[in-house]
Amino acid sequence: MKNNDQSKVMEKIVSLAKRRGFVFQSSEIYGGLNGCWDYGPLGVEMLNNLKREWWKNMTYRENVEGVDAAILMHPRVWEASGHVENFTDPMVDCKQCKARYRVDVLFDDLSIKKKKELLRELFPTQYEGQQNDEVIEEAFAQFVTNEQQAASIVTKLPCPTCGSRGTFTEARKFNLMFKTFVGPVEDNSAVVYLRPETAQGIFVNFLNVQTSSRQKIPFGIAQIGKAFRNEINTKNFLFRTREFEQMEMQFFVKPGTDEEYFEYWRAERMQWFIDLGMKKEKLQWHQHPKEKLAHYAKDAYDIEYLFPFGWGEIEGIHNRTNYDLSRHEQYSGKSMKYFDDETKEKYVPYVIETSAGASRSFMAFLIDAYHEEEAPTAEGTTETRVVLKLHPKLAPVKIAIFPLVNRDGMPEYARKIESDLRSQFRVFYDDSGAIGRRYRRQDEIGTPYCITIDSQTLQDNTVTVRNRDTMIQERIDASQLKEYFLLKLF
Amino acid sequence: MKNNDQSKVMEKIVSLAKRRGFVFQSSEIYGGLNGCWDYGPLGVEMLNNLKREWWKNMTYRENVEGVDAAILMHPRVWEASGHVENFTDPMVDCKQCKARYRVDVLFDDLSIKKKKELLRELFPTQYEGQQNDEVIEEAFAQFVTNEQQAASIVTKLPCPTCGSRGTFTEARKFNLMFKTFVGPVEDNSAVVYLRPETAQGIFVNFLNVQTSSRQKIPFGIAQIGKAFRNEINTKNFLFRTREFEQMEMQFFVKPGTDEEYFEYWRAERMQWFIDLGMKKEKLQWHQHPKEKLAHYAKDAYDIEYLFPFGWGEIEGIHNRTNYDLSRHEQYSGKSMKYFDDETKEKYVPYVIETSAGASRSFMAFLIDAYHEEEAPTAEGTTETRVVLKLHPKLAPVKIAIFPLVNRDGMPEYARKIESDLRSQFRVFYDDSGAIGRRYRRQDEIGTPYCITIDSQTLQDNTVTVRNRDTMIQERIDASQLKEYFLLKLF
Repeated sequence: MKNNDQSKVMEKIVSLAKRRGFVFQSSEIYGGLNGCWDYGPLGVEMLNNLKREWWKNMTYRENVEGVDAAILMHPRVWEASGHVENFTDPMVDCKQCKARYRVDVLFDDLSIKKKKELLRELFPTQYEGQQNDEVIEEAFAQFVTNEQQAASIVTKLPCPTCGSRGTFTEARKFNLMFKTFVGPVEDNSAVVYLRPETAQGIFVNFLNVQTSSRQKIPFGIAQIGKAFRNEINTKNFLFRTREFEQMEMQFFVKPGTDEEYFEYWRAERMQWFIDLGMKKEKLQWHQHPKEKLAHYAKDAYDIEYLFPFGWGEIEGIHNRTNYDLSRHEQYSGKSMKYFDDETKEKYVPYVIETSAGASRSFMAFLIDAYHEEEAPTAEGTTETRVVLKLHPKLAPVKIAIFPLVNRDGMPEYARKIESDLRSQFRVFYDDSGAIGRRYRRQDEIGTPYCITIDSQTLQDNTVTVRNRDTMIQERIDASQLKEYFLLKLF
Repeated sequence: MKNNDQSKVMEKIVSLAKRRGFVFQSSEIYGGLNGCWDYGPLGVEMLNNLKREWWKNMTYRENVEGVDAAILMHPRVWEASGHVENFTDPMVDCKQCKARYRVDVLFDDLSIKKKKELLRELFPTQYEGQQNDEVIEEAFAQFVTNEQQAASIVTKLPCPTCGSRGTFTEARKFNLMFKTFVGPVEDNSAVVYLRPETAQGIFVNFLNVQTSSRQKIPFGIAQIGKAFRNEINTKNFLFRTREFEQMEMQFFVKPGTDEEYFEYWRAERMQWFIDLGMKKEKLQWHQHPKEKLAHYAKDAYDIEYLFPFGWGEIEGIHNRTNYDLSRHEQYSGKSMKYFDDETKEKYVPYVIETSAGASRSFMAFLIDAYHEEEAPTAEGTTETRVVLKLHPKLAPVKIAIFPLVNRDGMPEYARKIESDLRSQFRVFYDDSGAIGRRYRRQDEIGTPYCITIDSQTLQDNTVTVRNRDTMIQERIDASQLKEYFLLKLF
């Protein structure tokens, strides 16, 4: 598809998400809160299904345990993890008008003309006569990766708010953690942070979990939970938000075996997305180049999905070495060492992390499922059918129930089927409008099965069950429905 | 049980919770963070089970939809809801030493002697010679419910930190909402709050949900999620914490029908706890007296559980009238009116709220399930058996699998059963120690079924399944196990 088709896909999905109740803008009646989203009735079902599938896949194993740690943690945790010092973006203030800017945003907003000017001023000979915009962009981007060089350029820029020149302060670090205060006094001793990642809740509980569950290394600890980052630029719907949900697992291994488990979990995690129906050709690996690895990482791969706006990370698999546990040992003064009963060795384990975004995966599954197809109508023509081909396990509504007409006992029959199925499945009862329209409504939200109750039902106790993707209907004995769906859906 | 027995029960449960991995102190290696707790491997399973049961019970209905709203909301939400103005506790500062106190805590910490002194000073004749401590306590508590009277007494108290008298400032209101800042500038325009209740996330989405789900009044919206309160006094384990989880449902009804639905939901909610095995005699209703109702409420009942420290609220059922929706209409300028297609009426609905604490319910179920029993040993004597009689749906581990001895192919047979069951159930495999000890380990965490594989198994493919509560074992064909447990556990 072309780029503008792709941006239309995003528009269509955001619109469908709102209209059908998958995702609403947070606090919409007050104009929204930037970077926050609310899940509606269908969204919360789908998100819960997604989280449950992850949970079962990751923790219904002999060597993985779950935890659910608090969002508020002791502030020393974030000193130990390096977040207080390093989880920052450089910012400048305009001394004239007091406006505040993130340095990289100032650069992003510069015109190519301005970038050329700046480069020629800095390197009069090198860029003389250079007309290729891509070369300029690249050279500029490369130049400002160096902090000192970036700072030297900022002083030359006009303030976008008041237009003054040379009025920017020196760049200072802006921490992306949200901070708040516990207790009644708002001073430094009371500062706590909203966790920017769930991983640390696992690390600080490492020995508590290991001891209480009697696990032996290698074993993992998994967690699903909210995290918060005070992003200046939120964008792309659920992709970059200030509040988001992570699904993380930290697998603790003996140093030296880390590379083997890194490969094991890479394969497992990619397979998970594929098993839940994500198209293989929309998934790829991105290995972090050595020079861009986080300070704690020995190796790192992202699973990227091809969103309409380009490739974007939906999960990271990281070899975090023994960095986090060693730091917590150092900062807490408590041993984080594991004692191996068999070999009598004592060591700080290495950690292989699988860190998936629940919100991002949700969005990727939604986009991946979106299809527009030509489908035949009752009148013998065709029409465009919008269908979410969600894996049945992810679909928010599992079964829709339609009495064909509102008389002859069909509604009563349909209601009985509904109440039989409702305790086990999320079902939807619909008796309004033409049957074709009712099917389309369910297709659009990805309901895998639709049951109709027709005049034959009243004679022989059979109903039709229509498959969302093939649109083929089969007649099934009404008494067999529960078993039929248990086999299909669990 | 006597009071000291009861406090021992709490101690035992907190200790069991830590030792077996239900609940850990948050950030324990750093000395903990007051008012925050982490759920360990068994805790997270039990909490998830509890939330899932609530979710199925409350939203697998035709007239209730779910949502999952963001924790961070637009700050105007909390002006409209009244939290910015009213969600406060009075505090005073000592001008001498700068210590800060919550006024009611100052009162709570006063000795009965001091209270007597103060009352006699204020009412010289009335309390002359009064020796009954309960009368004094009651009179004092009654006296300070009045804000002005409380303020007049505070000025007479010595500061508990420096001992100075008459050095307290006038009481001022301290808001219990945690606040933080969005974006890089920490000023008033950037303040947002961590939600102190999940209800408002439902109210602001009322029309989005109603429209997208095509619901008609009466219908409800349910949500499970974290909320935060900057409590000065946290206490009683999971009972009063700064971070906690709520399970709330707001049911929107036509004014005039509110009392009927209030009664309906009261009955439904009490039954839910009973159906999940909570002892009836440990549950009671507490109606809020008219003069103590919240400003928005027409009627309010708490479901209270008899904790070892006394009766405590685990859920509130409130008739919130049309207060919240009307306020949001006023503050957002957006209509919150529902249009009734049939009667052509337009109105702001009344709201019946069912607000359960997930963390508190978790604790109540844990305490309620705790039993110490005399049980026979293999040697013909008896010993004390600690058993959590959790409802099988809540139990964190569903099935334990024990090969009787580690030879003759029993471990292999047991492993095969384990892998058959693991995809559907949370199972635990244990081959270490005497069989009696293995049973006890499972009893202590509430595992409803234990399977043993013994020499007979290898001859006729039957295993024993032991019931946690009755301790009766039955022999079952190994090929029937999955079906057997599906029927028992789903």
